[in-house]
Amino acid sequence: MTTVGHLINGETITDNARTQDVYNPSTGKATKKVALASVETVEKAIAAAQAAFPEWRNTPPIKRARVMFRFKELLEQNADHICKLIGEEHGKISHDAAGELQRGIENVEFACGAPELLKGEHSKNVGPNIDSWSEFQPLGVVAGITPFNFPAMVPMWMFPLAIVCGNTFILKPSERDPSSTLYIAQLLKEAGLPDGVMNVVNGDKESVDVLLSDERIKAVSFVGSTPIAEHIYATANANGKRCQALGGAKNHAIVMPDADIDNAVNQLLGAAFGSSGERCMALSVVVAVGDEAADTLIAKMQEGMKGLSVGAFSDPSNDFGPVITQQHKEKVIGYINSAEEQGAKIVVDGRKPNVEGYEDGFFVGATLIDNVTQEMESYKAEIFGPVLQVMRAKTMEEAMKLINDHEYGNGTCIFTRDGEAARFFSDNIQVGMVGINVPLPVPVAYHSFGGWKRSLFGDLHAYGPDGVRFYTKRKTITQRWPSSGVREGISFAFPS
Amino acid sequence: MTTVGHLINGETITDNARTQDVYNPSTGKATKKVALASVETVEKAIAAAQAAFPEWRNTPPIKRARVMFRFKELLEQNADHICKLIGEEHGKISHDAAGELQRGIENVEFACGAPELLKGEHSKNVGPNIDSWSEFQPLGVVAGITPFNFPAMVPMWMFPLAIVCGNTFILKPSERDPSSTLYIAQLLKEAGLPDGVMNVVNGDKESVDVLLSDERIKAVSFVGSTPIAEHIYATANANGKRCQALGGAKNHAIVMPDADIDNAVNQLLGAAFGSSGERCMALSVVVAVGDEAADTLIAKMQEGMKGLSVGAFSDPSNDFGPVITQQHKEKVIGYINSAEEQGAKIVVDGRKPNVEGYEDGFFVGATLIDNVTQEMESYKAEIFGPVLQVMRAKTMEEAMKLINDHEYGNGTCIFTRDGEAARFFSDNIQVGMVGINVPLPVPVAYHSFGGWKRSLFGDLHAYGPDGVRFYTKRKTITQRWPSSGVREGISFAFPS
Amino acid sequence: MTTVGHLINGETITDNARTQDVYNPSTGKATKKVALASVETVEKAIAAAQAAFPEWRNTPPIKRARVMFRFKELLEQNADHICKLIGEEHGKISHDAAGELQRGIENVEFACGAPELLKGEHSKNVGPNIDSWSEFQPLGVVAGITPFNFPAMVPMWMFPLAIVCGNTFILKPSERDPSSTLYIAQLLKEAGLPDGVMNVVNGDKESVDVLLSDERIKAVSFVGSTPIAEHIYATANANGKRCQALGGAKNHAIVMPDADIDNAVNQLLGAAFGSSGERCMALSVVVAVGDEAADTLIAKMQEGMKGLSVGAFSDPSNDFGPVITQQHKEKVIGYINSAEEQGAKIVVDGRKPNVEGYEDGFFVGATLIDNVTQEMESYKAEIFGPVLQVMRAKTMEEAMKLINDHEYGNGTCIFTRDGEAARFFSDNIQVGMVGINVPLPVPVAYHSFGGWKRSLFGDLHAYGPDGVRFYTKRKTITQRWPSSGVREGISFAFPS
Amino acid sequence: MTTVGHLINGETITDNARTQDVYNPSTGKATKKVALASVETVEKAIAAAQAAFPEWRNTPPIKRARVMFRFKELLEQNADHICKLIGEEHGKISHDAAGELQRGIENVEFACGAPELLKGEHSKNVGPNIDSWSEFQPLGVVAGITPFNFPAMVPMWMFPLAIVCGNTFILKPSERDPSSTLYIAQLLKEAGLPDGVMNVVNGDKESVDVLLSDERIKAVSFVGSTPIAEHIYATANANGKRCQALGGAKNHAIVMPDADIDNAVNQLLGAAFGSSGERCMALSVVVAVGDEAADTLIAKMQEGMKGLSVGAFSDPSNDFGPVITQQHKEKVIGYINSAEEQGAKIVVDGRKPNVEGYEDGFFVGATLIDNVTQEMESYKAEIFGPVLQVMRAKTMEEAMKLINDHEYGNGTCIFTRDGEAARFFSDNIQVGMVGINVPLPVPVAYHSFGGWKRSLFGDLHAYGPDGVRFYTKRKTITQRWPSSGVREGISFAFPS
Repeated sequence: MTTVGHLINGETITDNARTQDVYNPSTGKATKKVALASVETVEKAIAAAQAAFPEWRNTPPIKRARVMFRFKELLEQNADHICKLIGEEHGKISHDAAGELQRGIENVEFACGAPELLKGEHSKNVGPNIDSWSEFQPLGVVAGITPFNFPAMVPMWMFPLAIVCGNTFILKPSERDPSSTLYIAQLLKEAGLPDGVMNVVNGDKESVDVLLSDERIKAVSFVGSTPIAEHIYATANANGKRCQALGGAKNHAIVMPDADIDNAVNQLLGAAFGSSGERCMALSVVVAVGDEAADTLIAKMQEGMKGLSVGAFSDPSNDFGPVITQQHKEKVIGYINSAEEQGAKIVVDGRKPNVEGYEDGFFVGATLIDNVTQEMESYKAEIFGPVLQVMRAKTMEEAMKLINDHEYGNGTCIFTRDGEAARFFSDNIQVGMVGINVPLPVPVAYHSFGGWKRSLFGDLHAYGPDGVRFYTKRKTITQRWPSSGVREGISFAFPS
Repeated sequence: MTTVGHLINGETITDNARTQDVYNPSTGKATKKVALASVETVEKAIAAAQAAFPEWRNTPPIKRARVMFRFKELLEQNADHICKLIGEEHGKISHDAAGELQRGIENVEFACGAPELLKGEHSKNVGPNIDSWSEFQPLGVVAGITPFNFPAMVPMWMFPLAIVCGNTFILKPSERDPSSTLYIAQLLKEAGLPDGVMNVVNGDKESVDVLLSDERIKAVSFVGSTPIAEHIYATANANGKRCQALGGAKNHAIVMPDADIDNAVNQLLGAAFGSSGERCMALSVVVAVGDEAADTLIAKMQEGMKGLSVGAFSDPSNDFGPVITQQHKEKVIGYINSAEEQGAKIVVDGRKPNVEGYEDGFFVGATLIDNVTQEMESYKAEIFGPVLQVMRAKTMEEAMKLINDHEYGNGTCIFTRDGEAARFFSDNIQVGMVGINVPLPVPVAYHSFGGWKRSLFGDLHAYGPDGVRFYTKRKTITQRWPSSGVREGISFAFPS
Repeated sequence: MTTVGHLINGETITDNARTQDVYNPSTGKATKKVALASVETVEKAIAAAQAAFPEWRNTPPIKRARVMFRFKELLEQNADHICKLIGEEHGKISHDAAGELQRGIENVEFACGAPELLKGEHSKNVGPNIDSWSEFQPLGVVAGITPFNFPAMVPMWMFPLAIVCGNTFILKPSERDPSSTLYIAQLLKEAGLPDGVMNVVNGDKESVDVLLSDERIKAVSFVGSTPIAEHIYATANANGKRCQALGGAKNHAIVMPDADIDNAVNQLLGAAFGSSGERCMALSVVVAVGDEAADTLIAKMQEGMKGLSVGAFSDPSNDFGPVITQQHKEKVIGYINSAEEQGAKIVVDGRKPNVEGYEDGFFVGATLIDNVTQEMESYKAEIFGPVLQVMRAKTMEEAMKLINDHEYGNGTCIFTRDGEAARFFSDNIQVGMVGINVPLPVPVAYHSFGGWKRSLFGDLHAYGPDGVRFYTKRKTITQRWPSSGVREGISFAFPS
Repeated sequence: MTTVGHLINGETITDNARTQDVYNPSTGKATKKVALASVETVEKAIAAAQAAFPEWRNTPPIKRARVMFRFKELLEQNADHICKLIGEEHGKISHDAAGELQRGIENVEFACGAPELLKGEHSKNVGPNIDSWSEFQPLGVVAGITPFNFPAMVPMWMFPLAIVCGNTFILKPSERDPSSTLYIAQLLKEAGLPDGVMNVVNGDKESVDVLLSDERIKAVSFVGSTPIAEHIYATANANGKRCQALGGAKNHAIVMPDADIDNAVNQLLGAAFGSSGERCMALSVVVAVGDEAADTLIAKMQEGMKGLSVGAFSDPSNDFGPVITQQHKEKVIGYINSAEEQGAKIVVDGRKPNVEGYEDGFFVGATLIDNVTQEMESYKAEIFGPVLQVMRAKTMEEAMKLINDHEYGNGTCIFTRDGEAARFFSDNIQVGMVGINVPLPVPVAYHSFGGWKRSLFGDLHAYGPDGVRFYTKRKTITQRWPSSGVREGISFAFPS
């Protein structure tokens, strides 16, 4: 069985000490092992990144950007292979993996604009003959810790921008689906990145602890669940590091009575069940305003869901694949059970999907639940499965209050045709990413990604303009030149 | 004896429970008392700020800015009174107080540009007929905790920008010199600020603890010493607040052999001894490169220091005044003693200044110490007194290494006539604010203030563009309008 | 009878040679004379501006901005007097004059942000150890030529920004209502502007010809009618000057069947008849989509217009005042006549207004015309009077085609509740300033003003960010410092 | 003999009517013909561009950018072929052609950032519940007219940015060396650009006249000599087009007494003689401050020039190649003659270069002239040949006055080690592109290129941020949504 290793200083190596199984969630079988880095291995990676920093920092931004131009080409050329690696270990269908990869590539495209993005501000004559300007200098060695659900995209929210800003990078990807991430990192070498600038360590808590405590690490970017995000943020800060930590979500859509319901249903099917709902921007709650809208919506969703198929990643006709592990499957089903027990109505039940030939796969079918209320466990928690819950509100204000009261504030959406309702919603909703008739309002790569409330810890959002600010520190220089006589001609005398 | 109170919801009130003496450091006498807010009082302020938020947030930025235009006028009209209040409680001479106030006003001027500063980014067609834009929305109630050394300026680094961005504010100024700060805040009401938008609570740790723990406070800005800054930062973050905490400094100047020494000496006199060295940007260490430069510098500094006079704030012919307390005076003298004991040479000794008629004032005279080394206590710590220490380096690299090795990285400066030396220095020095022949490289209000290393905790610097980003949260909206038939004319039919 | 003079080098002077009458349009009587500058007078102004330039250019932007801060205060303090001067010579009612002045002041407020607005872009390491940055330097002496309809506002679109960018200025205001403009310029001196930086010459074609030909003038800003704008633009360019020339308009509103008609009518009343329609952003054509919308609109407009009163500027209960001259009154009435003759229906006829006590005033009453078509003279031309023409379209596309086919493209507006219709309109309409349910979509001072097609000649719009670019020229500096040995220590040797 | 044709609507076609010979300047032989477009052919190109516009304009910027990503790859893959085409028809050596191409590619790289560059500004609450934002929309069909000296680079200053902003393009390259330009344009199709978006017409005045007069052309970018630039600018403006027209240059370097002369000489050799001086940024005049600096410079230049070799493009060991035509060769020699006649000293004489085997080539050898004065013909005119003229000034002020008095103001440079001299120079020199120890201060692609005085006609500089502004028009939208009842729930009633 292959063991997925680490990428340190341009070489792929394996720690022998400890490994963990990597599963194919479609079959339920372990197919590879992943090396779990020891403290020494992580420190080796840090040392490599530290050594590579001075020269990389002094490389002109346009040259750093050109590595990203080449990297984009390589990602595109190797897209099929990357998607296959994602499918095998994560379970998502190839069209979904391709979408993820594309979103990742968009961040590489943004990083190609580094020379523009790194411009400082220059002020002439802040005082008489005194000038001042700002420079945005790299931090040094920075680290990223990323989740299983987007093994290609989420790392690419981080390292392309960090690297193009002049930092060197250590990535600790999820140990559940490490192969695509490692492969992508290896392409950077082919793209011309000097050894040591990008490093990958696979591992578990042991690796993370080193990254959070070693003083050579200047910043940590994290994406995962809220409790871990909170821990990472507090620990990194206590250790003098800059940190941004993205956590969980519970993304609501409001469906207004004037909405185009057919359109809304079409959009919701993908937003709720795509990637088995294992997305921090998955749309997991619909709040219908008025029973009429609710009843129509339920009926049309039920109809639409008949066409959805769950199955193995390898069949591109499937709409979505398995969840990541057996335990996670049980957890998702547990939430559905609890909703049922607490009084909700299971309209479409995906607890026992029939996936012929893949009986051991970690599948959950698309599930629709009606009459969900604020007190239910399934409402409070992030389920991270193909489960859409419907709530009913009498007014738009009531619907908005639900959203504003929830612990999370990542994404949200409204379906309406009305300009005023949309503007009131986007202005007043306590959520960082808002869609108007757009169910997955993930900002494009040249804007920034970030939730509010307990969905993000830190001042700055991920990628885009905020990402540039996160991966650089501001230096402000104020300059005055006293007359040295050179200009006035005194200096004619001196070489004599 | 007057008791300095709190400003809550537009009214100045006094807590009766606890007070503390406020001294005139020039005479050494307590002249007023300051109320120390109870938990209840702080919570009352928070409630007022919370109540004022919704309307203030919805006030158009240009209207918020106009309060700042009017505030600037009032500050200018009342400048003499403010400077007198500063002098009485802090001890700084009127010309120095006027300089401080002016720097504060510059932040108000910057805040007047709010409509420009709050512009979001708009992208048409992020996808077909899909638009996306960002808004920078206020955080809610935010707090500032400020030090004694700039009772007017440092608060104005914070609240004008926070308020103009749509937040409401609670300021906890230093309890040592609270009167000018309170007076300034009162002017805001006259400038047209609605009650509750700006509140001041005087107090001690009890108040601070409330501000750090109450969940209605969304952000905390702090300026003070590094240990407290670190504590504030960790606590605020742990409580889910955004925080920027500015700490201590040890600002070095390098004097190169090609420098214009007369000019350097002139600049250093003000930068080292102005405001008794009680500035986080005070120039407290000079590293001369080459013994020749060092000897010349020492000789000329000694000469220049003969003209300096320390004395009571009320005499504008004095160059600088007392330090803030008797304890602080003893601490400063203790550092001078320790330098002497550890082998440094006290070239000019200010330990026993003679200030006739003010024998109980907290005065320390301008002090120059030569042959200081990296191991000395007086070098490691921030003295915060009128003490300039001289070190000698053989090369520029050696001088830069000293600076880069120091715990703090607030400001630094080089004196040279040479373009290449200046560029190498500004590029490579590990300090956030760099001067080229400018000894106090405090960024102007339209740039941002911030040190590196243990001089600042947080991603974003204070005031200027970073200040705007700190006091706002990003919301990204993505919008698509499905055809509703209105445009195509279907709607002609419907009202019938 | 008073003669309104020129402001040159800080002094108000009068040319004796030639004068012209200034009328009070409310009474129809000449009440003052205005001096018409000779070539020599204009050249004197240019010489003054030229002489003042070097020092003003080197004044730090923040100091230039502070003149604008003070200027704003003075404008506010003297608002009543300015409005009275406007009313006497232009005829607009005080509330309208106050609105104009306020819009002018907003440009002064924007100019106060000069230090932020003038920031250049700084790039470190465009190549190894090579830096590059841009500076936006002032042009030198620049001129403004402004129309009668906004004697306070339009000049303030120009000179505050031009001056704060470091230029010196010569303004040639309209000779019909010169007093308020001159008075405003005089306040600048009180605000602390050095003599010669701002100059006003009153005059006619003779003055304009000097401004367009003298090579010391580096740029010309013009607002007026399209034929003159075109001439000014061609001539200024041929003489090597930068130019932006704003011309005429024909601003259409589309009223969609789903619009809130009561709201639309309310808005249209002010937008069509305010300031007697003598605004380049006046809403002069309504295109109703569908006969039902048209009929309702006509009925409600007719009703709403009953409440409108035309009369002397001195009575604040009037809605609008006279037009500027007797000839202009006749021209406006001529257009109404021609519409009637060409088949349109005069729904409300303002050709013979009854303004008791002001029988010789230049009054035209509010006029509403239905069934207007593309071929009519009254449709093709800019009437610049209180005349609203209604057209009927079957579809939104037909309505948009009307607008896109018109020679002018200044402003336009749509009334609808539908997000999709609004977005399609704003995207595809060939007009520079677009309102969604906003009938006068004049950009605020921190955005820029400009029409498309034959409404503006030049690349850059007026005021706001484009105004800053117009009043500055870009300089790009690229810098490398060869090692001079100072840093490495060779220099230790040289003074010996 | 091959005939170089036009690229229209994705097809390469040839006009049969008229052709002109294309020479290989290294051999002096005509080797190809170029088709000269008739009016009909140009109109066909315009029609194709017009037809392609609506769909291209609506293509999301990121998709337009992706064509540029792919175009960059193709340019790099085909670099050798492009350089050979340049060499054959222009005569420049391969290393020089490669440099040109690289600079062109950098503009493509910048264009890849279109989504970032096209962001408009969004303001919430410009009034209560009123929002306003700007969009930068494409102009339509735009044209570029480019010179022989950079057949690859100068077109790429224009069309990548114009196209990525959503415009469609017609390029009229120089008829002297058309092949590389056409080939590059053909690569765009392979990169995925839709037919009609990019078109090339070869031709002469007949084509240019159509481009300047046809009303479907919305903007013209031109690079060439000043008299033609001036004509193009006036004509385009008179015909209602936006225009930027870059003209001639006379770029001076000042050598200060404190300069590193060896470094300066090294830099000057390339800057003066590279590409036979046929560059608008060629360094053609050196002003030495002080006779000592002048004498040293002359001596070292003379020495350095011994190593320079002029010869055929096909031998990469040559430093530079022939000039473009026999007539131009004679013109260059004529200027050298006139300098000699007017009293200058020909220090190194390149009038009769010996290039074995290429006796009919259009070669001029590197020429150094001393004692040049302001009155000489060779000083007033742009020679555009491998001729460096030396002037002597007593002071820096005198040297700067020479530069400021010259008709042109494209580029300039100072050699000094002194910060103050450099800052004084860059601040006060009346030239648009300034080098500090950088002899060819061509701004990088993410800054903008433009001279002052008679070197550029137009407000905006070429490429970079100004290029984006040039190729787009600003639209400002102001939006308010009246309540339609949808939000409040009235709408529940209506479909019933």
